[in-house]
Amino acid sequence: MGTFNEVVEFSGHIIDSWTLPRAWDMIMDQGGNFVVEEIRIGVSKTETSYARIRVEAASAELLDRIISELQQLGAVLFNAEDAHTEVVEQDGVVPFKFYSTTNLPTQVRLNGQWVEVQGIEMDVVIVIDRVKKCAHGKPMSEVCVGEHVVVDHQGIRVQPFARGREREAFAFMQSDVSSEKVKVLAIHQIAQCMKETRAHNGKILFVLGPAVIHTGAGRYVAELMRRGYVQAIFGGNAIAAHDIESALFGTSLGIDLCTGEQVEGGHRNHLRAINSIRAVGSVEKAVELGILREGVTYEAIKRNIPMVLAGSIRDDGPLPNVITDMQVAQRRMRQEVQGVEMAIMVASMLHAIATGNLLPAKVHTVVVDINPAVVTKLADRGSFQAAGLVTDAELFLRELVEALS
Amino acid sequence: MGTFNEVVEFSGHIIDSWTLPRAWDMIMDQGGNFVVEEIRIGVSKTETSYARIRVEAASAELLDRIISELQQLGAVLFNAEDAHTEVVEQDGVVPFKFYSTTNLPTQVRLNGQWVEVQGIEMDVVIVIDRVKKCAHGKPMSEVCVGEHVVVDHQGIRVQPFARGREREAFAFMQSDVSSEKVKVLAIHQIAQCMKETRAHNGKILFVLGPAVIHTGAGRYVAELMRRGYVQAIFGGNAIAAHDIESALFGTSLGIDLCTGEQVEGGHRNHLRAINSIRAVGSVEKAVELGILREGVTYEAIKRNIPMVLAGSIRDDGPLPNVITDMQVAQRRMRQEVQGVEMAIMVASMLHAIATGNLLPAKVHTVVVDINPAVVTKLADRGSFQAAGLVTDAELFLRELVEALS
Amino acid sequence: MGTFNEVVEFSGHIIDSWTLPRAWDMIMDQGGNFVVEEIRIGVSKTETSYARIRVEAASAELLDRIISELQQLGAVLFNAEDAHTEVVEQDGVVPFKFYSTTNLPTQVRLNGQWVEVQGIEMDVVIVIDRVKKCAHGKPMSEVCVGEHVVVDHQGIRVQPFARGREREAFAFMQSDVSSEKVKVLAIHQIAQCMKETRAHNGKILFVLGPAVIHTGAGRYVAELMRRGYVQAIFGGNAIAAHDIESALFGTSLGIDLCTGEQVEGGHRNHLRAINSIRAVGSVEKAVELGILREGVTYEAIKRNIPMVLAGSIRDDGPLPNVITDMQVAQRRMRQEVQGVEMAIMVASMLHAIATGNLLPAKVHTVVVDINPAVVTKLADRGSFQAAGLVTDAELFLRELVEALS
Amino acid sequence: MGTFNEVVEFSGHIIDSWTLPRAWDMIMDQGGNFVVEEIRIGVSKTETSYARIRVEAASAELLDRIISELQQLGAVLFNAEDAHTEVVEQDGVVPFKFYSTTNLPTQVRLNGQWVEVQGIEMDVVIVIDRVKKCAHGKPMSEVCVGEHVVVDHQGIRVQPFARGREREAFAFMQSDVSSEKVKVLAIHQIAQCMKETRAHNGKILFVLGPAVIHTGAGRYVAELMRRGYVQAIFGGNAIAAHDIESALFGTSLGIDLCTGEQVEGGHRNHLRAINSIRAVGSVEKAVELGILREGVTYEAIKRNIPMVLAGSIRDDGPLPNVITDMQVAQRRMRQEVQGVEMAIMVASMLHAIATGNLLPAKVHTVVVDINPAVVTKLADRGSFQAAGLVTDAELFLRELVEALS
Repeated sequence: MGTFNEVVEFSGHIIDSWTLPRAWDMIMDQGGNFVVEEIRIGVSKTETSYARIRVEAASAELLDRIISELQQLGAVLFNAEDAHTEVVEQDGVVPFKFYSTTNLPTQVRLNGQWVEVQGIEMDVVIVIDRVKKCAHGKPMSEVCVGEHVVVDHQGIRVQPFARGREREAFAFMQSDVSSEKVKVLAIHQIAQCMKETRAHNGKILFVLGPAVIHTGAGRYVAELMRRGYVQAIFGGNAIAAHDIESALFGTSLGIDLCTGEQVEGGHRNHLRAINSIRAVGSVEKAVELGILREGVTYEAIKRNIPMVLAGSIRDDGPLPNVITDMQVAQRRMRQEVQGVEMAIMVASMLHAIATGNLLPAKVHTVVVDINPAVVTKLADRGSFQAAGLVTDAELFLRELVEALS
Repeated sequence: MGTFNEVVEFSGHIIDSWTLPRAWDMIMDQGGNFVVEEIRIGVSKTETSYARIRVEAASAELLDRIISELQQLGAVLFNAEDAHTEVVEQDGVVPFKFYSTTNLPTQVRLNGQWVEVQGIEMDVVIVIDRVKKCAHGKPMSEVCVGEHVVVDHQGIRVQPFARGREREAFAFMQSDVSSEKVKVLAIHQIAQCMKETRAHNGKILFVLGPAVIHTGAGRYVAELMRRGYVQAIFGGNAIAAHDIESALFGTSLGIDLCTGEQVEGGHRNHLRAINSIRAVGSVEKAVELGILREGVTYEAIKRNIPMVLAGSIRDDGPLPNVITDMQVAQRRMRQEVQGVEMAIMVASMLHAIATGNLLPAKVHTVVVDINPAVVTKLADRGSFQAAGLVTDAELFLRELVEALS
Repeated sequence: MGTFNEVVEFSGHIIDSWTLPRAWDMIMDQGGNFVVEEIRIGVSKTETSYARIRVEAASAELLDRIISELQQLGAVLFNAEDAHTEVVEQDGVVPFKFYSTTNLPTQVRLNGQWVEVQGIEMDVVIVIDRVKKCAHGKPMSEVCVGEHVVVDHQGIRVQPFARGREREAFAFMQSDVSSEKVKVLAIHQIAQCMKETRAHNGKILFVLGPAVIHTGAGRYVAELMRRGYVQAIFGGNAIAAHDIESALFGTSLGIDLCTGEQVEGGHRNHLRAINSIRAVGSVEKAVELGILREGVTYEAIKRNIPMVLAGSIRDDGPLPNVITDMQVAQRRMRQEVQGVEMAIMVASMLHAIATGNLLPAKVHTVVVDINPAVVTKLADRGSFQAAGLVTDAELFLRELVEALS
Repeated sequence: MGTFNEVVEFSGHIIDSWTLPRAWDMIMDQGGNFVVEEIRIGVSKTETSYARIRVEAASAELLDRIISELQQLGAVLFNAEDAHTEVVEQDGVVPFKFYSTTNLPTQVRLNGQWVEVQGIEMDVVIVIDRVKKCAHGKPMSEVCVGEHVVVDHQGIRVQPFARGREREAFAFMQSDVSSEKVKVLAIHQIAQCMKETRAHNGKILFVLGPAVIHTGAGRYVAELMRRGYVQAIFGGNAIAAHDIESALFGTSLGIDLCTGEQVEGGHRNHLRAINSIRAVGSVEKAVELGILREGVTYEAIKRNIPMVLAGSIRDDGPLPNVITDMQVAQRRMRQEVQGVEMAIMVASMLHAIATGNLLPAKVHTVVVDINPAVVTKLADRGSFQAAGLVTDAELFLRELVEALS
């Protein structure tokens, strides 16, 4: 072993953010070896540390893989060169040795200068514009012939979270997912974070699942919209259809939201609501004509809050405003996540995962679901900033409105 | 087939309460056969119906089993005799052909008279006192040599719910278990039912799991106690120990209930709390000495609300007030369920199931848990009156206190 | 009350299939009233019954709603006229009084003749071709200007399951959803049903979620395909991408399926697999070029088993074979469900619900998931024939292969 | 700040086992401060490291708490004195400053010598016998007047897991709990571990929940017993009662385990089984009389495998062999866990948690349940060695038997 090796450097809060032990662990787990060439440990909690490590592996592939993972922990190749690139030869197909991003802040080296990658998100490639000296993240399907895509590991720098400093606000919730916690407390912390975000005009995104309407909690979302706490909404056909059914007939899937009783058999009111909107052509038109006069969709139109409705294979209808092509829908969502500072995902799985994939790690994300599996699944997708709350969507939103009063 | 047969009668709302179709289904499922000898159908929803059915089976055992199940649906043997009994020959052992009860109102025929069985609960035997002409339910372990236990199926009458009339109040919740419902509505209905119960001095029992305290919701229970909405509490060592830890140190399993932060490693405060009470001998003494000054346990002692703490195999300590012998604990619980009209079970599985087994079907039971499996499990145990609510214990109790204001 | 009324008839096993009590219950729940004009009860379990009922309601809307639900239970209007229709005036918009279907066998009356509705599925409308004297189900989005759509309740007959006869085979599993059952037994019953289906050349559809590949169970599905037990597969981008990743690199999301160890950081192999297929243009081409040599997708191509991959908003890539437009994907799925007799849905939620919506109730459906919530959700969507199995997807498929040997 | 301080030492694999960063984190989280007085980092993965740290805190209580947690990570006070003790003055009550153990190997210093604590388990105190120079763990309820109990932090040394070396065998499973893994692989690893344990005559403990019998998997447990893979069984009244019901009547809660059909209404067979054993006095007697001829309980008696049945508040009966007093039951379980090297817990929550509390961390523990919440709950209780498997109990046991063939 040891034929293949590479020297990497780490600096910052690499011990108290567990970066270094994590790096060593990973090298060992992967079957590599390492020698610490130099190490300087900050001796109090404010001083930073530095380490230079020689990584050894039995094959070029293994070394490659290890370096790739070390980069996600913030390692920078010691002999820093410019980022390597290859040219796209086929639309929507990336060079085979493509570098795949994390959702952490990332820089690439161009002409000896470190340049921030714009629009970073998980699992995309980095496209370089050598003329404008800029770099941005792009999903595989969007790359075009002639574009320069970063390959290999040279000239890439990922900035992991300095655990100590970043987590403060969310500390309470980021520990493990459990329903056995003081939720009222957590809700007040979320409200505080929302107030701070809005105080500097930051953008708050809500991702909503249909249960928000089923449980009658649409009124709380509408209230948050009226108070200026919602700058964008992502969801599917169901959330909007239920919301419109509720506005038009007072029911959600036929259940009267005021009495809890079934007043209409199953899906019929749901289909009637969709049909009514289809008949006039769009929800905007329905508002204009005075057909739609309340609810989440109504508020979105009245207040120019972008509401991206991405279709799914199980949709009825769908509503005319639903984007049925997934590529188009992803593109719209990518536009709207620009500038988002806080994302609150309630009772949604499909759209929440899709959104989670698009968000940079630095966005404060709150995942609320009564099913711990959903919360865990989302918190596990690499977003260090995701705080999970296993609780009831309806009571959560009701309490949130109160906490913001 | 058909060598063995028996004639049974049904009367009342046997069609709109689905009794008759259920009976026929069961006979067929079990492999028996039946002939309708007479049937009179009430032709509007207020009229009752009547049916006389001859049940046939290929063996005495099968007939026996079918009749046994028909009785739970309200069937009465056509040629009604007095109930048969056998004498107990060994303490804690019942005659082999014992009749096993449901939790529905039940009568036995003694000297040609129908007598109500006292203390009815699920899966017990009926002991007859021929002198006092009375009958009461007894668990197997409590029967004594010389007692007369009902055997076979003669002279037994079970009164099933007349679905139409009974369910009104709880209709909203008794449909299927789901988190996707308007919970605020349901909580207000529960509050209404509690008010009505207390208006005629009815007894409300709370069964509480430790998560009630972990989530900081002990304060809401204490408030309900102060307002007179709690006449008995069942729980385990954990709920009381967490409550006392919270009163003494402000933590629950070391988590500060005001900040949500871990202030004490794991179980130490928990053990300290238990040890403090053990040192003075009882929680009553701790209240008397001014050591324990708030919380659920404190309120229970101050207000003479019986609090039955039944131990379990995983307990630390336990607290001196915990009943460590399960037979003794069941006996205490049986005493306290006498007269209970409403039972509210929050975030408890073990104690909720144990209590559910002891309650007659007529008690209005509300099961609240964030885990649908727990709610389903409890709702499935034959209590027609159980209403399940899949929601957050903490937010439920907070909302309940508000709804009762 | 009682200004508005309508007379309906029921016939068949309307008591032992609980049809009649269910109908009465519903009428009462909705706030209507009824008078039994005539009733004849079959006095043994083979005889059928008949009932003629006058339904009364305080408003035309309420009567409408009640009749609508009674039809789903098999009620036929006493004064049977031909089905009423209205003409579509806008593509994709149905007449406001549209009749919305169930997934049960349905007939409409044309010129005094009862005609079977083709392509019946849940929540679609019925389009009439008066020239060809035929009727078929169509989703709202597919109706075209000039088509005749059934409205109101006249001339419609729904055939509910005669509980007694239909359920036999699946009786064991159709009772309530629980993990606490003898699964080996159930799996052998499913295997038996598959054998019988294939014995008369019936079509078996598999709907698969990505966990099937993650858990290494792709090999069992491939084996079932080789043995002729799979006539169509529905899934998403993930199942195919994981399957191809597994075939190309031996991993699923970077986890080695032979050792269980992480060999590649997160999603990179996943993206590489998708990129490889995009580079050659399609999975068919990848098989032709010898790039793809094993796995579920490979077997599908080799054996001409249709594999419909419907995209979703969270997809990476996607693979070129994935249908990204949801309307197009639904259309393809509708084509492929024609003739399906048995549907086995494993570890899928999104695609399973979408498929469930498209299947007529008579298709034998098995839903397998380790999460009881998924199984319950699917079993609740009105498919009487759905049998749920709360168990491990991997071990289920392994056992199923063995049971079919 | 900094008035109160204490110097501690760490040595060993304190960086690659994440000990040091964890320690620093904790100090900061608790609001303390630290200065690294000396640090020596092993520069390859085989070399050990050393650190001496001065911990500072604003109060004696805080310092106390920090030191207490540092000890659980392996910190030893620099100025090592003998362990401090106080004398028990009341049976079952420990001195207020008691040291509460972890389940990790622990030593106390007596007369300048480090002595291993016998019978270590979570959350007990350490009782010192100064004459015999030995120390052992004791639960609060068992301490007697006059015994010497360790208090404060002096002279205590906890040996945390050296992550690298210990975890090998279980590495695959110890990562996060999920149903989306290759379970067949994991089961074969468990089988391998069982074979190795038995090869040197190691003791394997099974903790079983009633679903093991409900699902018909009792036969696999019986087979494991016959093959010598079971040295002790822990469970409750239900597992034994269901097992005996199954042996006597072929049912479990009235469900026929061969056909899956309900043959006896609800609990009656269950009660009959319990009554039959109560009538003869014990399960041993029932075996002797030839009444009980197969099943898990039968095999336990025939092969002298200790089977500890601890009662619970929800029990029917119970069986005569069930220990109804929880203190007595815990004592019996403590005896039987002595020498256990591997513990396999299947479909049990109550008894699994109770057992988990009693096991030293070094015991290889496998937790199998279809409910991820149960697996997570058990894996979270501080047992680093617990490997969780979210899968079907029945299919797991079936596969395990096969893997051991």
